[in-house]
This record gives sequence, C-alpha cells and structure tokens, in this order.
Amino acid sequence: MQSTNQTEQISLTRGVPAVEALPTKLLSECFQAVLEAPDGWSVLQYGHNGGYLPLRRLLAEQYNVTPDQIIVGNGSLHLQDLLSALTIKAGDIVFVEQPSYDRAIKTFRRRGAKVVGIPLEHDGVNIAILEQAIAKQVPTFMYVIPDFQNPAGVTTSAHKRQALVDLAEKHNFWLVEDIPYRTLRYKGESAPLLRDLNAERVLTISSYSKLISPALRVGYLVGPLALVKELTKLAEETILAPVLPTQAAVVEFHKRGYFASNLENLKGLYAPRLQSIVAALKKHMPTVPFAEPEGGFFVSIYLPTGTDTLLQRAQAAGLALTNGQDFFADTLDGGEDAMGQRFVRLPFCALTPVQIEEGIRRLATLL
Amino acid sequence: MQSTNQTEQISLTRGVPAVEALPTKLLSECFQAVLEAPDGWSVLQYGHNGGYLPLRRLLAEQYNVTPDQIIVGNGSLHLQDLLSALTIKAGDIVFVEQPSYDRAIKTFRRRGAKVVGIPLEHDGVNIAILEQAIAKQVPTFMYVIPDFQNPAGVTTSAHKRQALVDLAEKHNFWLVEDIPYRTLRYKGESAPLLRDLNAERVLTISSYSKLISPALRVGYLVGPLALVKELTKLAEETILAPVLPTQAAVVEFHKRGYFASNLENLKGLYAPRLQSIVAALKKHMPTVPFAEPEGGFFVSIYLPTGTDTLLQRAQAAGLALTNGQDFFADTLDGGEDAMGQRFVRLPFCALTPVQIEEGIRRLATLL
Repeated sequence: MQSTNQTEQISLTRGVPAVEALPTKLLSECFQAVLEAPDGWSVLQYGHNGGYLPLRRLLAEQYNVTPDQIIVGNGSLHLQDLLSALTIKAGDIVFVEQPSYDRAIKTFRRRGAKVVGIPLEHDGVNIAILEQAIAKQVPTFMYVIPDFQNPAGVTTSAHKRQALVDLAEKHNFWLVEDIPYRTLRYKGESAPLLRDLNAERVLTISSYSKLISPALRVGYLVGPLALVKELTKLAEETILAPVLPTQAAVVEFHKRGYFASNLENLKGLYAPRLQSIVAALKKHMPTVPFAEPEGGFFVSIYLPTGTDTLLQRAQAAGLALTNGQDFFADTLDGGEDAMGQRFVRLPFCALTPVQIEEGIRRLATLL
Repeated sequence: MQSTNQTEQISLTRGVPAVEALPTKLLSECFQAVLEAPDGWSVLQYGHNGGYLPLRRLLAEQYNVTPDQIIVGNGSLHLQDLLSALTIKAGDIVFVEQPSYDRAIKTFRRRGAKVVGIPLEHDGVNIAILEQAIAKQVPTFMYVIPDFQNPAGVTTSAHKRQALVDLAEKHNFWLVEDIPYRTLRYKGESAPLLRDLNAERVLTISSYSKLISPALRVGYLVGPLALVKELTKLAEETILAPVLPTQAAVVEFHKRGYFASNLENLKGLYAPRLQSIVAALKKHMPTVPFAEPEGGFFVSIYLPTGTDTLLQRAQAAGLALTNGQDFFADTLDGGEDAMGQRFVRLPFCALTPVQIEEGIRRLATLL
C-alpha cells in the first residue's frame, strides 16, 4: 500500500478529476480519426453555431429530444452565464440549494439576480421552506444539482423531485437541473431526471468535464425549443460557435466505445475513494452526521461549531480546505447563512485512499 | 483551367478560409504530439484560466509583452464581448470605421453602447470627421481593423495610424485594433501596429481563425496589465478557462514550424485570387473606383447608385451577396448611413480565380 508522508500537504479543495483518469491516449486517437477523415476539414471550418451537429444528434438520442433542443457551449458555466443573461431581469430572484455550486451563485448574482438558498437536507431541499420562499416571490428559475450535489454530495429523492416539478409547474418557473456527476454512480439506482417528470419546465445542463476531461470545456443544455433557439442566437452573437474539434473528438469517443469503457475505469478508480472517505469519517469523526453518497465527487459535513480560524489551522496542519461560506447564498430573510461557517466540502476523487485517510485524520484533530 | 458552369451559384458572402487551406493533417499531428507527451494530462485538466500558459508565453514573445498582458479567449468575438461587458457603461459611445465588422457593431450595441461610424477612406478613417465626433463625445473605445479591413479591404496608412494614437492619447480613450488578417500580406510592407506607436492606449485583438482554422476558436487580446487582469477575472467567472487542447495544438503548430509553412501555403493560394478579383473589377467595372488591397480576404466597392433590390436580382443571376447595410453603424448625426445601400463586400479567398471572374462578371451585369 502507498504510504503517506506525515508532512505531505493534502488538498481537500477543488472537485477535479484524478490526473490518472484523464484519457490522453484515447482522446489522441479520436482527434486523429476526426481530422484525418475525408470530412476532417468540416471540424476546422466556420459553422455549427449552437454546437457540432453530430454531437447534438448523439445527445438528442440520449435525452429523447430533437437536436435543435440542444445547445452546446464551451463548458456548462458558459451556458449558465448565457441562460442568466437571457432570463434574469432587474429585481429577479433565483433559488439555489443551500449550499450550492459557488460559481453558479456568483454567475446569477453578476447577471443581476438576488440569489436565495433553500436549505438542503439529506434527501434534497426542505420543501416547506421552498414553498414559503415561493409565496414571498416566485423565482425566475431554481438551480439544483439533484445527483451527488456539489458541494454537499446529497442526492434528491424521487419524492422531492416530484415536489420540485409540481411547484415549478404550479408557479410557472424554470427548474435548471445540473447533472455533471449523475453518470458517476458507484452503487444503487438513479432517481428519475427532473426533465423525465416535466420536460416543459426543466432545463437540463451537463458536461463532459467529469466524464472525459474538464479542459475540453464541452457542456450542453437541453430544453424547450423556443428557449434553446434564443440561447443559440445569443451564443452566436457572443462566441459565433463553440470550439469544434473538441466536440468532434467527444463524438468519436462515443462511437469507438471509449465513453463506456472510460466510465467503468472512472468508477473503478473513484468507488474505493468514496469508501475510504466514508470509512475515515466514521472512524475519526464518529459523532458528525453526514449524507453518505452513492457516487460523484463530494462528501460534506457540518462541524459541530462554526470557526472562522479553521482554514488557517488546517493549513498549519498540512490540510488545504475551501471556505464553506462561498457555497452559501442569502437566506430567505435576506441575511448571510451562519451555517456556511460550519460547512466543509470534501472532494475525494483526486486523492488516494491513503491520502484520504490521513486528510480526514488531520481534519478530526482540528475539531 | 477549371471551367465554371454558367448556372453554378457563386457566393460572395462570408469571409471564410478556403476549405483546401485547412491543415487537417498537420493539426492531427499536433493534437497527437500534445496529448501523448508526458505532460499530456495537463491540457485535459482544469487550470490555465486566462489561457494556456505556453501559448501566452509564445504570444508574449511575439508582442514583446509579459504573458500576463495576454488573455486567450474562445475566438476574438468572445474577447470583444468580454471587453464590452467590462468597459461599456450606460450612455457610452463607441466609434468604429464606417463600414466595419458587422458582429462587432452588434456586440457593442448589445452591451449598451451607441455605435458611431467614422467614414473610412482608402487610407483609413477621415481624421477631420473623427475629431468632430470626439468633440461631440469622447468614446469609451474606438474599434479599428487597420490591416486589410473587414469589410472594406482598406489598410490604414502610417500617417493616419499616428493620428489615431495621438487622438486616443490626447482624449483618453482606448484604441482596439483587431488584426486577424495582418499576417496575410501578399505584397508590400506592413505599417506599424497601433500598439507599436502607443502600447498604453491600444488593445490588440487577433486570432488564428484566418491563419490556421476558424473552428479552433483561438483568439487573444494584448493590453495593459491592469485591464487584462480584469478581463481575465471576468473570463474566469463566465467560462472558467478557454478550451485547452486546441490552444496546445496551436503552440505545437508553431514549434514544428508548421505555422510558417502553412502561412506560405495560404499566401500562395490567396494571392492569385486577389489578383483575379482586382483584374475582374477593372475589366467588368472600369468606372467603379476601389481600394486595391495588398492582402487579406476582402475587396469592396460602392455601387454608383443605391438599390435595395440588388440582393434579390443578384440571387436571380446566380450570385449570393451580403447586405451592405449590416456593416454600417449610425452616422455622427445619429441616422442611418445611406452609403450602406451602395456598399458591396467581395470576399475572394474561398473562390477559385475562375469563379471570381464569373462572379464579378455577373455583378457587373446588375449595375
């Protein structure tokens, strides 16, 4: 077994793929095949505004929609920004799970929305509080990560998924479901997609960042035709078309069966890491409750008490942590959420089991 | 000599590279080399926000700046949009050459600017009118394409370049020089870059769209450190990082000497096409004056009289043309520029000499 130096710095900060999981050789083959095909020129020329058509066709089949219900962007953050630019008007409100993806919160705010967090429980948001929030002001959209949530690691139950789409339908707002981790399920069964429950009220965003490579920056959005058409127009006006050779390489990656085999590799690599972090938490912090995920990149905990010196003390103990407060939007009352000071996200995919065990041991000494 | 069917549709619309000029095989080699190198994983992982560092280093050397004075985006339109988002406030005005790149005009307007066109003569904008415009309102920036301008084909003289930077310095506004065609010079000598005359007042934008491939969407901006830092922050918040493998392939393309050899190929292909269009214009429209370019993608003419039926009549004659009005911003007086109805852009790079001769012959019959 690999040993860990007691003084080695351990990073529990960003949700990045393991370096050894990046399929350099397979992608090299795909780029080569695409460019040296008789129509290789077509992935180097202008065109395919809205996304490389063969990729949109592949995704259309996967999501059971038409290709013009799909827009491909340079990463899913790009699509979150485009969607915000299109839909958020002055005075608008957006709901997120509390906690939520920090960059999404920032994006919605930068585009002018007030962002309110609905407390996330171990099976999805608190529906009663969501109803109170809607009664106060109906949001332009609610942004959720229903599977292996970033940063909490929580998966929304089938029951709460139905409640979400029922509320969106009744009160006429968009549900934006962001599902980059959904396919990385190490055990158990998936709950339905929100879009499977109501395709007219749901915009589905995902990407290949966690499934092939982040630097390809291939993200996509699936939604109703009229909205996708408007997004595509705005995308054309701002970037012309998303980068094509990378999208074509993704299509080739699928065609050759690499997507399926690479996914099995990822699960084989990450599943033991999830087991390790769960075991380490139970061993070193037996009194701290947490939602045990069945996939994805993250586990999270709330410390028994908030402490604004945790990051510095962790650093001194050889442990890099992310500021929990960044994942928190405003509360329903408009204030800062004090829970942010107690929140710790624990991304486990880019660390070995030995590093994970040591990292959690160090974290436990700080409590 | 290749013959042209009298009924073949000839397109004088978009400024696209010739399909046969797209270096599929060379790029394939570059992607392979990059991905199969020992550090191949690094172009698939998160990182390099602001642009792939080896590319920024290469460009820094080329422009005699530091790498942090360069931001790489997913195409130069993307950077025009970011720059507009950062600098344009409500009530601001932006100057462009009249005519100018239609997508740039649209971008500046969408971001809230009033866009005023300064008449473009055969050696650059009319400086007296520019001075009048500045006296009315100093612009946030003036956007110019000093070399082989899109859509006019005009190159700004050394004398007028100096006048532009003197005015920008005196009145404290940015000059944005967009130079995607500059390197495609088929004869003659280049005038200095605006940034060579005053690097503190000039933001230089360019891309590899016309020099390697448009679909790579690799564009960049060179400017003062403080502004580039702000742009990079906004880019990180909206797209995280630009697509990496394509940028790495561009670096490899340079390293292997392919950039230089490919550029010679492009010039060898395009120079005779420029000769053909110049000869055809002189032959079929001897009384219509035009600026004869020494490089780039475009020649342009003003028809003797405006006609709003030209596009339809051309279509009927087997000739596709672009609406000239799209290249025109407001006049200094705030109205529509009537010259737009007489303006015809003639992109010549994606047509054979035979198609060019036939296209111009057909155009002449419509006058």
